[in-house]
Amino acid sequence: MSKYWSPVVQELTPYAPGEQPRISNVIKLNTNENPYGPSPLVLAVLTDNIEKGLRLYPDPDASTLKAAIAKNFSVRPAQVFVGNGSDEVLAHTFQALLKHPDPILFPDITYSFYPVYCRLYGIDYQTIPLTESFEISTGDYLRKNGGIIFPNPNAPTGIAMPLASIESLLMSNPDSVVVIDEAYVDFGGETAIGLVDQYPNLLVVQTLSKSRSLAGLRVGCAIGNAKLIEALERVKNSFNSYPLDRLAIVGAVAAVEDRGYFEQTCRTIVSSREALSTGLKQLGFEVLPSKANFIFARHPKADASRLAQSLREKAILVRHFPYDRIDQFLRISVGTDEECAALIVALKDILYP
Amino acid sequence: MSKYWSPVVQELTPYAPGEQPRISNVIKLNTNENPYGPSPLVLAVLTDNIEKGLRLYPDPDASTLKAAIAKNFSVRPAQVFVGNGSDEVLAHTFQALLKHPDPILFPDITYSFYPVYCRLYGIDYQTIPLTESFEISTGDYLRKNGGIIFPNPNAPTGIAMPLASIESLLMSNPDSVVVIDEAYVDFGGETAIGLVDQYPNLLVVQTLSKSRSLAGLRVGCAIGNAKLIEALERVKNSFNSYPLDRLAIVGAVAAVEDRGYFEQTCRTIVSSREALSTGLKQLGFEVLPSKANFIFARHPKADASRLAQSLREKAILVRHFPYDRIDQFLRISVGTDEECAALIVALKDILYP
Repeated sequence: MSKYWSPVVQELTPYAPGEQPRISNVIKLNTNENPYGPSPLVLAVLTDNIEKGLRLYPDPDASTLKAAIAKNFSVRPAQVFVGNGSDEVLAHTFQALLKHPDPILFPDITYSFYPVYCRLYGIDYQTIPLTESFEISTGDYLRKNGGIIFPNPNAPTGIAMPLASIESLLMSNPDSVVVIDEAYVDFGGETAIGLVDQYPNLLVVQTLSKSRSLAGLRVGCAIGNAKLIEALERVKNSFNSYPLDRLAIVGAVAAVEDRGYFEQTCRTIVSSREALSTGLKQLGFEVLPSKANFIFARHPKADASRLAQSLREKAILVRHFPYDRIDQFLRISVGTDEECAALIVALKDILYP
Repeated sequence: MSKYWSPVVQELTPYAPGEQPRISNVIKLNTNENPYGPSPLVLAVLTDNIEKGLRLYPDPDASTLKAAIAKNFSVRPAQVFVGNGSDEVLAHTFQALLKHPDPILFPDITYSFYPVYCRLYGIDYQTIPLTESFEISTGDYLRKNGGIIFPNPNAPTGIAMPLASIESLLMSNPDSVVVIDEAYVDFGGETAIGLVDQYPNLLVVQTLSKSRSLAGLRVGCAIGNAKLIEALERVKNSFNSYPLDRLAIVGAVAAVEDRGYFEQTCRTIVSSREALSTGLKQLGFEVLPSKANFIFARHPKADASRLAQSLREKAILVRHFPYDRIDQFLRISVGTDEECAALIVALKDILYP
């Protein structure tokens, strides 16, 4: 503490991202990165643009990127917002659309950044418990609220919600915004973007960090009714005129446009996920049904925290959350088939020495 | 307006950055960019890093960059904060250090983003008029306040304040933070960074956009007492874990480390500024004494808004602010000697056809 701090600062409990190890030779399955690099077209366009005008500010509106995203999803550019990773897009969303007199609602087990944003902006919230089988039951959200947000598929469970359930929630909750955080949707979920023209209260958030392999370049977006996007633009333009740098803009455009590479990569990861799931079950793990690029699993006879530590000693990083209800689970990002196989071998060594 | 907007959204008056024209063949003297590209070492390191791990998240702490900045300024890494351009650094500063019961103080003529941040975070402020000669008089700031912020050199005047005046202000204002926004300091001003160990209430903000030619890469920083930096980190880590992408981090490190190129570029711009100033005076302009990479000037016989329009028709962009007290001034970024000469020729044509 310090007398110079604004009062809000002492109330904050900052988000702790997964570890980024400084050493190599680690099998890194802890932060849901894509095991494959970005499209070769991204690398080519970045190389082409390094010599071009880094001395000049970027387009503050990133209009080429908005146009590419709009085209990809068959929406209008005015329905697209872009930001410095989906975390920044979410931050602006909390401030611009989720701060109302009534508390906002999100699951008790979900992306742990949501309560952090609430504290940053002084937003009241209530958490709604997942069911016994770790699913979101939309019926539990039918109460007065200032907004609703959850990931689909949810994190860290990986469990997806059918589009019909989302649509029924949108219909029964017309007075506040419903934010669907689709960071992981491309690995088997159904996107709600097709509903934005019908539901003025729907905002869909996506990221290029996972399915488009650009975690290192920091690009996320939101799709929704133009009025919701306008609110985000007003906040963004009161915060930072140019959140996306010149290389991030051109790289993201190339990533969005290379649909073939994107689809191929996602298919490969889904196939690896299914093999990994099978392997874990054979070792005795209970595996939640994942539609994401990670698996959430627990072993009835092994403490999750100790398992994570034992894997770490074998140079394999996975993520363990010491939270209520899920402290016996491990979240394991889907790596290459070789990395997944190495994980299975290591777990076998640990569990059945 | 929309019922879905948080109440703060409708109160916002977003900042309007200078135009980024989509056409080339324009002499662009409107947004204070550096006319020279970044250090060749920056381009080399970017090229080297494109193939390396864009699929992985960046270091959330950008520790290599903090180390490089700390070394450059002879401070400790714990005294350094980095962000996505100095605009983001300033935004976090307003939220983390300038939101208190008393109003904050800044000049009536200054960076026009300051009141925008205040509205975004609900911060009360008072503006203090510059003197008749457009200078900041620190004596005017000796009143109860929640913080003080101004650029040194000031923008858009270009006038610098001596370090002794800043030190006397720091001494007489021990109860709130004094933020010195040094976006333009490298073109002839005196940095206050040498005072951070003595004054726990001093925060210095700098950017790599101007003197290090990296407007397109979005990197800014703040230097101050570790307690002030901790407040900024708490807000940053409650907003976005990874505001600097992998390329921005490595590019910024190279830019900071290449002191020779930086010093040479700054010297060239200062020399061009002095020649431009002389040329403008010869055309009858009143030119404020600039220590920045821009010049603020007015002509007693020509309306500034019309002058800007006439220059635009000759494919030369300068900036005009339609604000009280300065609506007869033009802010002209210092370009290459060739660009400055072309501006002088164009102005001569317009003023003395």
